[in-house]
Amino acid sequence: MSAFSRNHEPKLSQIQIDDPFWTPRQTLAREVVIPYQEKVLNDEIDSLPESEMSHAIRNFRIAAGLEEGEFHGMVFQDSDVAKWLEGVAGSLAISRDPALEERADRVIELLALAQQPDGYLNTYFTIKCPERRFTDLQECHELYCAGHMMEAACAYYEATGKDRFLKIMMRMADCIIDNIGPEEGKIHGVPGHEEVEIGLLRLYRATGEKRYLDQAAWFINERGKDPDIFEKEAKRRGWYLWGNGGGDRTYTQVHAPVRMQKKARGHSVRAMYLYTAMADLALETGDDTLLKACRTLWDNVTKAQMYITGGIGQIARWEGFGTEYELPSDTVYAETCASIGLVFFARKLLEHSADGSVADVMEQALFNGVLSGMQLDGKSFFYVNPLEVIPGVSGVFPGYEHVLSKRPRWYACACCPPNVVRLLTSLGRYAYGENPEERVIFAHLFAGGRADLENAIVTVESSWPWKGDVKVHVRKKDPDKNLTFALRIPAYVTEGTLSAAGETCSIEALRGRKDLFRDGYAYISCNEEETDILFRAELPVRRIYASPKVRAAAGKCALKRGPLVYCFEQADNGERLWETVLEKNASFTVKTCEKGALKGMLLIETNGLRQAKPDSSFIPECGDDPGYAGALYGTPAPVYVPQKLTAVPYFAWGNRKEGGMQVWIRNA
Amino acid sequence: MSAFSRNHEPKLSQIQIDDPFWTPRQTLAREVVIPYQEKVLNDEIDSLPESEMSHAIRNFRIAAGLEEGEFHGMVFQDSDVAKWLEGVAGSLAISRDPALEERADRVIELLALAQQPDGYLNTYFTIKCPERRFTDLQECHELYCAGHMMEAACAYYEATGKDRFLKIMMRMADCIIDNIGPEEGKIHGVPGHEEVEIGLLRLYRATGEKRYLDQAAWFINERGKDPDIFEKEAKRRGWYLWGNGGGDRTYTQVHAPVRMQKKARGHSVRAMYLYTAMADLALETGDDTLLKACRTLWDNVTKAQMYITGGIGQIARWEGFGTEYELPSDTVYAETCASIGLVFFARKLLEHSADGSVADVMEQALFNGVLSGMQLDGKSFFYVNPLEVIPGVSGVFPGYEHVLSKRPRWYACACCPPNVVRLLTSLGRYAYGENPEERVIFAHLFAGGRADLENAIVTVESSWPWKGDVKVHVRKKDPDKNLTFALRIPAYVTEGTLSAAGETCSIEALRGRKDLFRDGYAYISCNEEETDILFRAELPVRRIYASPKVRAAAGKCALKRGPLVYCFEQADNGERLWETVLEKNASFTVKTCEKGALKGMLLIETNGLRQAKPDSSFIPECGDDPGYAGALYGTPAPVYVPQKLTAVPYFAWGNRKEGGMQVWIRNA
Repeated sequence: MSAFSRNHEPKLSQIQIDDPFWTPRQTLAREVVIPYQEKVLNDEIDSLPESEMSHAIRNFRIAAGLEEGEFHGMVFQDSDVAKWLEGVAGSLAISRDPALEERADRVIELLALAQQPDGYLNTYFTIKCPERRFTDLQECHELYCAGHMMEAACAYYEATGKDRFLKIMMRMADCIIDNIGPEEGKIHGVPGHEEVEIGLLRLYRATGEKRYLDQAAWFINERGKDPDIFEKEAKRRGWYLWGNGGGDRTYTQVHAPVRMQKKARGHSVRAMYLYTAMADLALETGDDTLLKACRTLWDNVTKAQMYITGGIGQIARWEGFGTEYELPSDTVYAETCASIGLVFFARKLLEHSADGSVADVMEQALFNGVLSGMQLDGKSFFYVNPLEVIPGVSGVFPGYEHVLSKRPRWYACACCPPNVVRLLTSLGRYAYGENPEERVIFAHLFAGGRADLENAIVTVESSWPWKGDVKVHVRKKDPDKNLTFALRIPAYVTEGTLSAAGETCSIEALRGRKDLFRDGYAYISCNEEETDILFRAELPVRRIYASPKVRAAAGKCALKRGPLVYCFEQADNGERLWETVLEKNASFTVKTCEKGALKGMLLIETNGLRQAKPDSSFIPECGDDPGYAGALYGTPAPVYVPQKLTAVPYFAWGNRKEGGMQVWIRNA
Repeated sequence: MSAFSRNHEPKLSQIQIDDPFWTPRQTLAREVVIPYQEKVLNDEIDSLPESEMSHAIRNFRIAAGLEEGEFHGMVFQDSDVAKWLEGVAGSLAISRDPALEERADRVIELLALAQQPDGYLNTYFTIKCPERRFTDLQECHELYCAGHMMEAACAYYEATGKDRFLKIMMRMADCIIDNIGPEEGKIHGVPGHEEVEIGLLRLYRATGEKRYLDQAAWFINERGKDPDIFEKEAKRRGWYLWGNGGGDRTYTQVHAPVRMQKKARGHSVRAMYLYTAMADLALETGDDTLLKACRTLWDNVTKAQMYITGGIGQIARWEGFGTEYELPSDTVYAETCASIGLVFFARKLLEHSADGSVADVMEQALFNGVLSGMQLDGKSFFYVNPLEVIPGVSGVFPGYEHVLSKRPRWYACACCPPNVVRLLTSLGRYAYGENPEERVIFAHLFAGGRADLENAIVTVESSWPWKGDVKVHVRKKDPDKNLTFALRIPAYVTEGTLSAAGETCSIEALRGRKDLFRDGYAYISCNEEETDILFRAELPVRRIYASPKVRAAAGKCALKRGPLVYCFEQADNGERLWETVLEKNASFTVKTCEKGALKGMLLIETNGLRQAKPDSSFIPECGDDPGYAGALYGTPAPVYVPQKLTAVPYFAWGNRKEGGMQVWIRNA
């Protein structure tokens, strides 16, 4: 449908993941999280206090006139239903489940009943104040909810072939177009929380209806033209539901026209959804100025404001971006949803061109900042993904209240858990890509399974991230036509081999081969009907250093192995982790965890040091009491005693005894 | 007047400071700050915006019926006048100034006119709502203002011998006693901001009227008996002027009876004023349980919650204490007034017994956390005294808004500047002490000048803190009676000599002499009518380390020389100070600053390192672009390039070009 050559993401139905790492996580999403969320949405979790009841389905029943009652929950409560439905779509694409599908269909019928004659669909306004529809675009999340519903409808259509939900959301999209837009008499507004742009673009591709593309384009192009848009909107309506008066322009990314935005600012999830939509629109329209803006923003995020975990958003107060290179480990926000948004944004950039530096970041965010959001048992979730947790400070100290050391069960504002679910169940979208015009298939991530693409069927066996072996089998659909398989070779792989068609090449040599290697991808010509590709990467433990500009990591390093960031937990390393030091020449032992929650994972062991006070000779600064252990300041320098250190994958932290954690460790 | 042996602080009139370090600072206070504040109080500073006008004197004129108008300013605006008068008293004790004294007398007459028939004196309530008097003891600061007025009245009496102000404040004290107290029909309340206890105790000593001692004792003993006292008060009155509803018990130290308080909590100035009053009361009553509580709290502050600068209060939100050992350098509050309060508290403990560990802390706070509050020209002031300033973050980033890199001219809430003034002009109180019963004279600090004490006249020449030479001449008033001169030998002095009566002893040997040395003080018998004492201390540059429990100082050290903490400023060391490293074996050069604002001060120079990115070999974590300087994370380890480092006295930071600053430096 696009006018431009594009590395398309595959449809949900095209990919079946079968991978020792990812399949259990998809299963968890399908068998634990989705059913749990279904109960939450239906107020069937008795352990939740009344105040945290979701009421989301009941809101729809009330809006549909099936039940008496009041709206309850966040103004964007509807989006929980949308995200659940999107997760269900992914789940059904992975494995048909007629009972689940029937229940989802019933929810969709409920949406149809709650939909107003003009197509409007939002329970908050329908129940509470229909006269206020579309008057608080800044914070009332109508367009946000609609966007999520559109994404869910498209996914459900992709997964099941049923267009009932799609049609509902087309009517809502048309209602939005009827009410908001450039024409005289319409509201000239943009959404305060971007998302509808993504939904409209998906809807456009699912339906081919250009008006959805145009509306998305209008929202994106209109944004920031009037930086006072929300202040004016607030004045016009004269009431507040919540949020600010629109004075904080960067929070909602209306401080400048989108093509003029050079630095990522404001609420990080909003920013990511905007940039994702911008990149998507540029794909549809071939708008280079928009693509350029996307790349500038991408660089700003990933080269100045991103944590090593792929976490983004330094500032808790506005859940968003801060000062460049100022990346505090301990007061960080790094919302799970923001890292998911970064994955979305990366994915869209990869559709423009396969660029290893983008795919590497996507993988980094996925394996670390996203996965850390979910407990290993799928039963509890982090919003905030810190790089350092200090018992007695994190969760307590002002500025640290948001930093928890234990994943809560569920949230009243339940955005992160279903966002993880929809990402996990649609993983194939991120792992693969295809450019049908140029007959190139891309493997952006290593994920085992089967991809039924336009030009070939690809079967992959992957031992990533624990081991570096990836076997790819490509069977062309038309043996007579050329086909290229492009396999990402992560920047962090410096040793290993790539074999194809009987030839083996070292990774080092491969990187020198301009004919085979470009921008982080190996381009393998599939000349025969079937081609076997074998990628074997060494995955040594690496010490990673931050740019010296990063104050929080000065004099420190982090451990990575493959795409996995590791961290040090109190459970393995004792209290006061900041006292521990990694020696410059220490070697690492990689060991399989034998028991407990981390069973089967590879842990890193090394001989480190721990700073201690030289008790017998310590001269306190105040008072004459040599050796006084209670003194706060004194001389001489601390001594360092040997300490065995154990690092665990960052995504798995907080799954054992609650306690301190740190990613960055002092590096002597 | 006390029933117990006590190391009395001297009266203002007993000490004349004549010291190359302190005299210019006293002169600055007298000639710059006091006249400037006088203008502020009289609304004669045209450059101040209307909203920041003090109105303090006009408030008194209005309350006195001399002028029509409304109250303006903080609810505790009166205390600015009190602190100014106390500063004037100190100034007059240093140097008579009939014109200044006449102006102060006129202000005192104005207070008399504003005083109500029952003795009540507070312009806020007199002008705005006399019916609300004494109903918001939690936050309306009536007792706080009264306490400052009492302190000022006593100081003015000490300095001038005039009792007009003293009598005014006795009437206010009597009014407080008439209204608040244990008796039936009186208000059973305690002040939300402690201070009146100190004032009442001073008033008791100045007048000998035991009812003031009893009222102070009642306030102190009543405190914390009912932790809900302020919540109940708030419910009773049903209105709020400002502040919280009394639910935060620790903020005002009402969470437990004072003898049960083991950890310093809440607002740090309030806490210090309370502890000072507790220690003072214990002196008057010989109450060991109270003294024990003071020492427990002192230990908690100085051994778990104090910055190396003598700054206290880790938390900006409540301007107070936080978690033990969690001493962030960059988000610190460390209010100037809190360090002044620590000096007050220390002084009272020293009246109980001369303890070098207490006096060392007092000196540390005075030379660092207090003095840093004032610009070298006396024209601008810090509330907040950070140990690290990061351009683009400090003053900007959430949690850092309060951390300024430049001293503002004056404050609407002008508590710190006049507090510095009253401390500087009454320095003799802290430098000297005398126990008349035991015939011991104490030098707690090294400050040149003349002390006319009960048993001797002491003349001191001191080159502290720049050099370590102190010459003391003691002339006994009664040659036939024994006299001991107790000279503090700071814990940080490890090399040097003490000479007296023709005998010279090394400091090391001195510390082993149980007959001569006890708890950080050398006890020198003055057998002759006149005794000369010479203390010569080596003052090398010392690297100071924090307890390993202090996360913010892990792997770092600070430089001190004598009592002075040093810091590194951007002006000397370039941007991004966190990149700099002090080598383990680096030597230091002490050099006199030749020009600029720091002219004449001793600076420390050393050869250090600066962390840099290994540009040509740097492999970014994401993307294949070796040597890419813009990457945020990668390998190998940073390189370190030589960099000359210069450290300046902490108290003098922020007097040159605005920029970064740090006290703690990485220590390789």
